[in-house]
Amino acid sequence: VGLGQQREGPPLGKETQPVSDLTTPIPSPRMASESGHAVAPDRWAKAYASRAHGVTKSEILALFAVANQPEVVSFAGGLPFVAALPLDVVGDAVAGLLANQGVSALQYGASQGDLGLRERILDVMTLQRVVAHPDDIVVTSGSQHALELVTRTFVDPGDVVATEAPTYVGALGAFRSYQADVVQIPLDGEGLIPAAFEETVLRVNRAGRRVKLLYTIPNHQNPTGITLSVRRRPQIMQIAQRFGILVLEDDPYGLLGFDEDPLPALHHIDPDGVVYLGTFSKIFAPGLRVGWAVAPRVVREKLVLASETSILTPTSFGQLTVSAYLDTYDWMHQVRLFRQLYRERSVAMLEALADLLPTMRWTIPRGGFFVWAHLPHGLDAQTMLPRAVQAGVAYVPGSAFYADGGGHDNEALRLSYSLPTPDRIRQGICRLAGVVAMELQR
Amino acid sequence: VGLGQQREGPPLGKETQPVSDLTTPIPSPRMASESGHAVAPDRWAKAYASRAHGVTKSEILALFAVANQPEVVSFAGGLPFVAALPLDVVGDAVAGLLANQGVSALQYGASQGDLGLRERILDVMTLQRVVAHPDDIVVTSGSQHALELVTRTFVDPGDVVATEAPTYVGALGAFRSYQADVVQIPLDGEGLIPAAFEETVLRVNRAGRRVKLLYTIPNHQNPTGITLSVRRRPQIMQIAQRFGILVLEDDPYGLLGFDEDPLPALHHIDPDGVVYLGTFSKIFAPGLRVGWAVAPRVVREKLVLASETSILTPTSFGQLTVSAYLDTYDWMHQVRLFRQLYRERSVAMLEALADLLPTMRWTIPRGGFFVWAHLPHGLDAQTMLPRAVQAGVAYVPGSAFYADGGGHDNEALRLSYSLPTPDRIRQGICRLAGVVAMELQR
Repeated sequence: VGLGQQREGPPLGKETQPVSDLTTPIPSPRMASESGHAVAPDRWAKAYASRAHGVTKSEILALFAVANQPEVVSFAGGLPFVAALPLDVVGDAVAGLLANQGVSALQYGASQGDLGLRERILDVMTLQRVVAHPDDIVVTSGSQHALELVTRTFVDPGDVVATEAPTYVGALGAFRSYQADVVQIPLDGEGLIPAAFEETVLRVNRAGRRVKLLYTIPNHQNPTGITLSVRRRPQIMQIAQRFGILVLEDDPYGLLGFDEDPLPALHHIDPDGVVYLGTFSKIFAPGLRVGWAVAPRVVREKLVLASETSILTPTSFGQLTVSAYLDTYDWMHQVRLFRQLYRERSVAMLEALADLLPTMRWTIPRGGFFVWAHLPHGLDAQTMLPRAVQAGVAYVPGSAFYADGGGHDNEALRLSYSLPTPDRIRQGICRLAGVVAMELQR
Repeated sequence: VGLGQQREGPPLGKETQPVSDLTTPIPSPRMASESGHAVAPDRWAKAYASRAHGVTKSEILALFAVANQPEVVSFAGGLPFVAALPLDVVGDAVAGLLANQGVSALQYGASQGDLGLRERILDVMTLQRVVAHPDDIVVTSGSQHALELVTRTFVDPGDVVATEAPTYVGALGAFRSYQADVVQIPLDGEGLIPAAFEETVLRVNRAGRRVKLLYTIPNHQNPTGITLSVRRRPQIMQIAQRFGILVLEDDPYGLLGFDEDPLPALHHIDPDGVVYLGTFSKIFAPGLRVGWAVAPRVVREKLVLASETSILTPTSFGQLTVSAYLDTYDWMHQVRLFRQLYRERSVAMLEALADLLPTMRWTIPRGGFFVWAHLPHGLDAQTMLPRAVQAGVAYVPGSAFYADGGGHDNEALRLSYSLPTPDRIRQGICRLAGVVAMELQR
């Protein structure tokens, strides 16, 4: 960075400058931007860090503003149906919390997270056989935050991170923001393909580099809805262990399988080789922003210090509210209600797709929020999206889930069934069918 | 990064591997760490990003665990006295929120923050003459988070950031974590010295580099309690503008002056040259984690996208609770109560220091939480700290507030009077006087 940005300005003010000068802002050589509508050039354009240069407003986000209008059936966002929560129970829990522990709920807390909550998190993970000590847990501001802390702790610019192809948009964003090189590994109906994982690792090694992290969503994956089969789990872990690759296991949907108890987590197979990410966003409420990481000891210490730098401490108010809810309510009963509700919605979507869009292909989720679908051959989900929104239905084009833009998979799109009612789902798929029919005629 | 971390392991499992294998974790070559007490070497030691290498558990933090015991009078943490809040009012506000807007409070929200809250934040900033549009505001998870987002957006490794000497520990942590070079500029009783600022900028320029950011806490500075005088404010901004330096104005204590209305913010002088950071942590409650940044348009867009990568969205629950509190309560009345309460505590501390430690020197704050004091000549605040904690009083040694460890200012310490009652403050200073007397005899 040179001196090119310096420019001439008024001379340094005298110490005798009158106070009244303060009421007149220094005239800026360019328009100030308070209005939010200024189109002045960016005074700070040359000052950004290299990691921030590529960061610009996305067209998809702009479109989502339209997609959020109530008349549009949105299959775009992966939002949980929080209206099914017992709001009166939550209200009572918070009232009790403020009456009995109000000062703790409103004060700063421990940067690692509240100990009582960390103990309760152990219970939540029992079904998935994640065995840990409260000391191993770092509470974060949702699991996106945990994902970012792990990335910050491990990823230097140019480091290689492996993920499923396709994978969660927010993970790609975190890896990109730390300038990682992302390699994506195909999955099939049983999830990540072990042979493809090993092949990718060897290919990277032949290029004189190594895969540092494997990021995987083993249960009801975002965006495909696919679950890693029980027989592949140890195979994936063995490859990771053989090549010294840390596994980042992101598990927001693990408890939301429709029909059966969850499979044991990858963390269960090799606790010292995995950072496990959990969250209350899908089994309780995302508005509280309470997630967590389970990590090997030294890693966990680094995550706590990174979290301090990032947000000082997670929210006491949110954490103690989660604890109060877990203590005063049969939260597993609520999880079973959510499972039932999302199963009904997935069935509504799958039946509507079969009835109205038989020329499309799609995955059949056994839990979670998502169907991964493909348009009839030759159509492009991204270019079709504005017309779909016009017709009153929104989705996320598959390209968003690929680090390279997914040019080979233009027909893919993600459909989320978690928020709309079954009737709205049928209406939305009907609109989608109309758009596809029009598109085929173009 | 080479291949040195690869190691031999079991061969890739066959597809026919039985399910029962899952119940037996792969034996790790090293001890698993769930217990939190393992002393095994760190399996991931070679995998950390370069920014994470220097990040280790601090001795000060370990000591704070001791200092938090109730029998210790802690002048260490800068904690607001939230027990003075109207807990019943907050409880009613949250109950009303969950009854009327429960779904919004528990759902994901906009990544920039709730629009209603952003409008209310404009009112909060009126007294400080920060003029902005709701679009200019980014709501963050406390203002530490805003500080980290600005750092991430602007700081490449080796970039130069200027701060006051001494300055806020958390800012130094954020700059360090992005591998900035921090230069610190002396302040006097009127705050940051303009001539010293200009001299520092020129010295950095002569070395072929430039100062990218000035981080400053103009009001009741942490850790010194000093406020930047009204005549120096435009001088500082003129130097920043002349050299193209973005000013990061951190203002947690601006409304907490004891005797008078706040001075106009630096943002008021040059809105396009400043990112202003505000927070509800000191005027309401830190447990909610709601802070904000006001930034020029393009910068703000980058901050929003960085925030998405970092935490997806700020807490709806916390934000709407803040809005409900601001709507249903005379929050400025509460701010005036806090001013009065902190003034009394500062007076208790200053009087006790004058009575019991006349050989020390200290600043006289006119607001905020802190007194910056110096031990009698020859004593060392850091080496004395364990003995002070032993005697039942804690503080933060001044070295923590210097990027270079503050070896030239060993006698300095920060005393926070915000949390203990006046009686406890007198007791704590009395204990401190005992420790100092012992120390002088060593």
